[in-house]
Amino acid sequence: MDAIARIDTALQRALERHSAADAPPRLAAAARHAVFPGGARIRPQLTLAVAAACGDDQPALTDAAAAAIELLHCASLVHDDLPCFDNAGLRRGQPSVHAAFGERLAVLTGDALIVLAFQLIAEAAGQAVTRLPAVIGTVARGVGMPYGIVSGQAWECETQVPLREYQRSKTGALFVAATMVGAEAAGADAGPWRALGDCLGEAYQVADDIRDVVFDTAALGKPIGRDVALGRPSAAREWGLANSVKRFMALLDRAVESIPQCRGRAQFQALVRSEGERLVPSAMCTRLLLQAA
Amino acid sequence: MDAIARIDTALQRALERHSAADAPPRLAAAARHAVFPGGARIRPQLTLAVAAACGDDQPALTDAAAAAIELLHCASLVHDDLPCFDNAGLRRGQPSVHAAFGERLAVLTGDALIVLAFQLIAEAAGQAVTRLPAVIGTVARGVGMPYGIVSGQAWECETQVPLREYQRSKTGALFVAATMVGAEAAGADAGPWRALGDCLGEAYQVADDIRDVVFDTAALGKPIGRDVALGRPSAAREWGLANSVKRFMALLDRAVESIPQCRGRAQFQALVRSEGERLVPSAMCTRLLLQAA
Repeated sequence: MDAIARIDTALQRALERHSAADAPPRLAAAARHAVFPGGARIRPQLTLAVAAACGDDQPALTDAAAAAIELLHCASLVHDDLPCFDNAGLRRGQPSVHAAFGERLAVLTGDALIVLAFQLIAEAAGQAVTRLPAVIGTVARGVGMPYGIVSGQAWECETQVPLREYQRSKTGALFVAATMVGAEAAGADAGPWRALGDCLGEAYQVADDIRDVVFDTAALGKPIGRDVALGRPSAAREWGLANSVKRFMALLDRAVESIPQCRGRAQFQALVRSEGERLVPSAMCTRLLLQAA
Repeated sequence: MDAIARIDTALQRALERHSAADAPPRLAAAARHAVFPGGARIRPQLTLAVAAACGDDQPALTDAAAAAIELLHCASLVHDDLPCFDNAGLRRGQPSVHAAFGERLAVLTGDALIVLAFQLIAEAAGQAVTRLPAVIGTVARGVGMPYGIVSGQAWECETQVPLREYQRSKTGALFVAATMVGAEAAGADAGPWRALGDCLGEAYQVADDIRDVVFDTAALGKPIGRDVALGRPSAAREWGLANSVKRFMALLDRAVESIPQCRGRAQFQALVRSEGERLVPSAMCTRLLLQAA
């Protein structure tokens, strides 16, 4: 089974196991809508890849950790799309959860997915129960206070926004959690995997800022120019487009180099390169740099 | 230290430990506002009382479980007060979180408190790590899909609302979690404690419906007549006030009787009686029954 199939299977089973015929049907439908069809599933793919590099001796726990990371990512998107935040009617090319199911179910869906994330991990502990505190702690730090996604979104509610702290919380924290938890689910030391998450998270955020300026709605599956329209901090605006492209390329190089010596390192590096190519194609990087020169 | 002081200390430490000087300050303030000053803290008191009855040999885990139950209760109130739900400007006699900090921070505060609840439990496992799956599973079932608080609130988004399922999810589920997790934190069988949570949860919901009809805003610290105004299912409306009072009294009796043989059973029963008195004073029950006769 390839990585995305493995992740989608874990997500599907989780949603099915926590649905019931005598429970409110629209909540279950909204939760499904929030999770399927998925985006690139890059964060849980990282979790699986790191776990594999570390031996992946408890695949059920790895699956749960990867699914949890993706559920938390989806929850943050659902809440971030709400009218009081981005008021985004489109997500992954389909109506956002609140557009399809209403605002109340969108709030509840985000809540339900957060709970489900932690529940999945606890259920999957099996013989590896001693790994739970590390796994749950890492995932929680990626999303909660003071430096997780929630804090990243909360920076948008402050008048003074430090760009680096904002981006590190809003995007970086869950990438760091995604890589580190892969190691912890496999019983390995998570420290060596922090840099990969850090660099990729920042690369992803810078890429998002570039794409927000350059791409059109059809290609992104969501409205563009939102950062500017919403007055959000944006690397592309603060540093200029060319500098952002240079920074993106440097971050990707650092991410590739940061991968520790492990089984399948070359494949892992290729995965990171191909994800970079998906985010901002190298041909586009070159073109943008030439335009600016 | 009495029970409420123990709970408030655990909550205070949790919020402090997960705040930071370089994190968004208004999120931390909003989270504090959501949790302090507290209400009756009845759910975490139940957790402590059940844990004590079961030996409470891991008090740090008990504290974390009790604090988690209260954080999840607070999170549900913050989201339930949002403009898209109850649009309540008052809570516990002070401005609700969205009234004080805005809607975006209210959404994020609820999210952050949910994450923090699970994080606290994982951090407190210590030598009792094998208890984590049960403790986390019980807490998650109390709040998540398909039968937890989130589902209770989601019933409000359906056109057909089964009163019993609605109330059981919206209020009962977290009471059941509060009692059962007390046993699990102490390494005991949670089964015998389910009935107490079940009866108390339903009693609490019926009391709330009675109070919504009978009390005034000053006494409740929140607007009254909301259930009617919002078209919510209400026992007092469906069964009539006198039948609701009878049901409340019967549920309280069943709750008191359900407490298993344990150390301090008489005190525990007195605690449940006094909580009943706080919810709907027995003098008021008598008066309402006489009025209806």
